[in-house]
Amino acid sequence: MTEPLLLTPGPTPIQPDAQAALHKPMLGHMDPQVFELNARIQRNLRRMYGAAEGAFTALAAGTGSLGMEAGFANLLEPGDEIVVCTNGEFGERMAEMSERYGARVTRIYAEPGRAVDLEEVRAALASEPKLVAVVHGETSTGVINPAPEIARAAFGRTLVTVDAVTTAGMMEFCMDEWGVDYAYTGSQKCLSAPPGVAPIAVSARALEAVRARKTPVSLWYCDFEGMQAYWDRRQYHHTVPVQLHYALDAALQAALDEGLEARARRTITLNAAVAEALLPLGFSHFVENPRDRLPTVLALRLPAGLEDAPLRAALRERGISITGGLGATAGKIWRLGLMGEAARPEHYRRLFRELAVLLGARDLEERFEARLAGCALSH
Amino acid sequence: MTEPLLLTPGPTPIQPDAQAALHKPMLGHMDPQVFELNARIQRNLRRMYGAAEGAFTALAAGTGSLGMEAGFANLLEPGDEIVVCTNGEFGERMAEMSERYGARVTRIYAEPGRAVDLEEVRAALASEPKLVAVVHGETSTGVINPAPEIARAAFGRTLVTVDAVTTAGMMEFCMDEWGVDYAYTGSQKCLSAPPGVAPIAVSARALEAVRARKTPVSLWYCDFEGMQAYWDRRQYHHTVPVQLHYALDAALQAALDEGLEARARRTITLNAAVAEALLPLGFSHFVENPRDRLPTVLALRLPAGLEDAPLRAALRERGISITGGLGATAGKIWRLGLMGEAARPEHYRRLFRELAVLLGARDLEERFEARLAGCALSH
Repeated sequence: MTEPLLLTPGPTPIQPDAQAALHKPMLGHMDPQVFELNARIQRNLRRMYGAAEGAFTALAAGTGSLGMEAGFANLLEPGDEIVVCTNGEFGERMAEMSERYGARVTRIYAEPGRAVDLEEVRAALASEPKLVAVVHGETSTGVINPAPEIARAAFGRTLVTVDAVTTAGMMEFCMDEWGVDYAYTGSQKCLSAPPGVAPIAVSARALEAVRARKTPVSLWYCDFEGMQAYWDRRQYHHTVPVQLHYALDAALQAALDEGLEARARRTITLNAAVAEALLPLGFSHFVENPRDRLPTVLALRLPAGLEDAPLRAALRERGISITGGLGATAGKIWRLGLMGEAARPEHYRRLFRELAVLLGARDLEERFEARLAGCALSH
Repeated sequence: MTEPLLLTPGPTPIQPDAQAALHKPMLGHMDPQVFELNARIQRNLRRMYGAAEGAFTALAAGTGSLGMEAGFANLLEPGDEIVVCTNGEFGERMAEMSERYGARVTRIYAEPGRAVDLEEVRAALASEPKLVAVVHGETSTGVINPAPEIARAAFGRTLVTVDAVTTAGMMEFCMDEWGVDYAYTGSQKCLSAPPGVAPIAVSARALEAVRARKTPVSLWYCDFEGMQAYWDRRQYHHTVPVQLHYALDAALQAALDEGLEARARRTITLNAAVAEALLPLGFSHFVENPRDRLPTVLALRLPAGLEDAPLRAALRERGISITGGLGATAGKIWRLGLMGEAARPEHYRRLFRELAVLLGARDLEERFEARLAGCALSH
């Protein structure tokens, strides 16, 4: 196997402490050392999400989509009304899951590449649905949606689910302050841990709503009350992937040690330098409104005449993996990942070294370095 | 962290190839190398389960309980009838999950420590329910249920789910020959891979039943059609835990290289030697009928006067982890694990060395060695 440099919108290159932690001793899921580890993970997730003391934090034992599903499975009952913001692959996935759980779904649609319109969401909230769901950063298009404003608009009347997959751990996320009731991400995104666990946070209000359900949660595996039995009361519910707990714990600790503000600066600065290096070559922002651009996933339209597949294949042969579009944008855009360990200047230096040769554009590297030097971000 | 020797009914000590495989390079879930790996896992799972060519095999991206849940989520619709054999914790979990998915559940109960009665199951099958579910080896009691006979009795009229958590990969499992439609296990049981993926196998008949559903599968994450899109057609469905795929693949290959018959012999022989060593100390079989005893989990009643908790705590201090009873059997039985890497004479030698001191029973080790020598199983 050869290891490509992953400059994709996930998974990201594994954080070194997380990689090392995979080799900690095998322990059973009921071992007191594992419960101590779990408690530290729960505390640190509260910090990462800006969650209140009464919020429940944990790792769902699956990848990020299971984190998404856990929210709908617990917070929706058949017939419940939900407003789902759909302006990309993952918003649409939220709507589909909600329908599978029997909810009546109102979609607030925006074209891929645009953020959802806050006023449209506000209008839909007037009927006081049970839940509103929004993807904070749409991985599929590089758009950031106004999740904090949506949460504030819903506060006190409608529960709020926010997909934090490309934001929490790298960008500001203030669950309690914004009024978010359920948030989730994947371990392999902003934290750069191995994939396979989904950090979740559930507000006290949401837990109350689960207790008030008329029907049981069909998803036994991620029933919040079952998860609380294990995480809070140290009772057996199901086996957990301990190696992935070790690795997530190490990556999360490293993220908090670096500081969430410093991480956000790292991404924002690098994003600007990468864009500045590429735009003069004819690349253009897929997300037209600067306010809607997600710092952790840079979506760029390809220059006319530049063929997507052969160029990405050539980069892949040189050991660098970047991602194209999904669905309607396939062949038309690139999505460059700036989450966690992907957001390192040396990685993009390597990309630009190869691209400079492939595209015959030597000034690419110079522009990148000049911009970075101006921001004091060089390593 | 200190690493205990895990002689529990799961998780088991990690198989060395699987441990090493955790450090293979990080690859994205859509990398061609990962798809090749997945295809090998699928082929090898067919061999492990004795599945037909048309069966779908894969890893569900969660622990064994998610494998259990995936079966009910896909094969049951609200109002469907199911017969569930409940003679322990995991049979009862199956019944609970089926109820959560809206099925009408008929429980065939047997006391913990006894196998379910085949004639009772046959009688319940007369009404031709949609599904019958049975735990092959009940981890919670050390009982083996007549899964092959139940599957044969249901064949052609009722679909059959078998929990293979303590059997597949270590004991004979003939999915196709017996007529099983859905089987699952956990990676950390008989295969001794790290926990976090659930190997599943779905018959062509079961896939047909899923396609004929009137309602969508609520569990998007493990919808068999979505899983097939990824595993069979190499389309994106959700991220997978690649490190756990590497490790499972290595452990599965090692199991097949050793040979499933050789593994069964290893467990059966060691089980007999462990029992023979302990019975003269006053331990007795919790499962009275020898025919109902599961080779991979030896459940023994404690001798009168021997206190469970302090003795297991003393062993744990000496670095050995064994498991007591669950629920009604707590404090009364021990459950000794003989799955995968736990089923090694040297591990039980270490247990008996410590137990000989703690119980003042020097002949324990001699009896164990004598029996092993008679079976040509010494390493």
